Amino acid sequence: MQFTSEQRLDDGVLERDFTLGDIPGILWTPAPAPASAPASASASAPVPLILLGHPGGLDRMRPRLAARARHSAAEGFASATVELPGSGDRPRSAAAEQARADLHRVLKAGESVSDDIVDRLVLPLVDKAVPEWQAALDALLSLPGIDGPVGFSGGVISIGVRLAVVEPRIAAAALFAGSYVPRAMFEEAGRVTVPLHVLLQWDDEGNDRQAALDLFDAFGSKEKTLNANMGGHTGVPQYAGEAAARFFTRHLKS
Amino acid sequence: MQFTSEQRLDDGVLERDFTLGDIPGILWTPAPAPASAPASASASAPVPLILLGHPGGLDRMRPRLAARARHSAAEGFASATVELPGSGDRPRSAAAEQARADLHRVLKAGESVSDDIVDRLVLPLVDKAVPEWQAALDALLSLPGIDGPVGFSGGVISIGVRLAVVEPRIAAAALFAGSYVPRAMFEEAGRVTVPLHVLLQWDDEGNDRQAALDLFDAFGSKEKTLNANMGGHTGVPQYAGEAAARFFTRHLKS
Repeated sequence: MQFTSEQRLDDGVLERDFTLGDIPGILWTPAPAPASAPASASASAPVPLILLGHPGGLDRMRPRLAARARHSAAEGFASATVELPGSGDRPRSAAAEQARADLHRVLKAGESVSDDIVDRLVLPLVDKAVPEWQAALDALLSLPGIDGPVGFSGGVISIGVRLAVVEPRIAAAALFAGSYVPRAMFEEAGRVTVPLHVLLQWDDEGNDRQAALDLFDAFGSKEKTLNANMGGHTGVPQYAGEAAARFFTRHLKS
Repeated sequence: MQFTSEQRLDDGVLERDFTLGDIPGILWTPAPAPASAPASASASAPVPLILLGHPGGLDRMRPRLAARARHSAAEGFASATVELPGSGDRPRSAAAEQARADLHRVLKAGESVSDDIVDRLVLPLVDKAVPEWQAALDALLSLPGIDGPVGFSGGVISIGVRLAVVEPRIAAAALFAGSYVPRAMFEEAGRVTVPLHVLLQWDDEGNDRQAALDLFDAFGSKEKTLNANMGGHTGVPQYAGEAAARFFTRHLKS
């Protein structure tokens, strides 16, 4: 892991770009505590980490990711993210590009999206991304000032599901029901046991509401909350973001 | 409205039993602010009111209602409730008793509950209860120290729906999707416009989850949140209660 640039944001949060091999990523860490703060709140005390999921395209997503990271920093969390395979400047896979073209074609034609297209679009992405996020986790948790437990927040929900299943360092996940879910993920969802907070935008034009409810039902976690709100994909109300933040505080800071 | 007894609870909340005609009720008001508090927080400043819904039977429900009222008092709300028609010491209606007997019979037989039974069970209750709650509101809002806006919380969801439609003093409602809903209420739900926070216990054995989701979808409110959690009817987790409290603080105290 190599840091390539850093800037101190106006609220004191340190934003550092890094590369992990050829994968770009961003790390945000909270402002150092004032000298008058109690030792437990000092910058030297390690903070828990939240992995910020996203749909791919770090440059485009940076403002929204930074906003989420700054809210989390105010609650005492570090946040980090890495670019998804096939997004941003990362090499495209011919198969993924074909699946994406097929998706756009059926959406444009007003046809329903077949399981085959969803599988080709999502499953290889999950297979490739999850080990990368785990490698990022190895690197991030070896940094001074960052420690477990780790939360996963938002982004491609199938990546969150797989990570929650295979990565024991993930202690809680706030998932965003806003992307296509392969049928195979419903079975994986049954193996998730960590506490979940699932955000659903009730009128998300690009999301199958019934599939989101079925996925919520399928999760094996004893503690799971569905928080559904009005509005489209990007219209998550501020209070819903705050509810997700309280979920992480409850589970990662006790 | 006549107060019949009062007691100061150990956290300073004043619990007063009252009668409104022949309808018993309970009013809880926050502890007086300490003399050192700013004038805006003093006991003389009127506080907003939350009407506490319940399934009927005030004596049996008193401990749970008092717990909800004390939480709300800590946030600066008065809370009040009245007995439902046909519950507690109030006269039974032969038709309601027959509907209740029919319900128990089909539940015992493992049969599905017909629309006819639900209609006979709920619609006359709503028709009778709602004007009573409105009369209680008249009396409560004339007391010194209590003022609008008013919230409605929990209890028989159809009563909450009707009140939200017909009573303009209701400014926000936290509804509990845990009782039978007549088909006619889905149409009424479309006429609700106040902000809603709907609690759903995902595994509520006595509740039709799909009907609850359909009702949530039917509400006309621009701001509505579905907060679904694991567990049965009485298993609402503490953090879900806190989320409902924040909803009222957001809408009744601005």
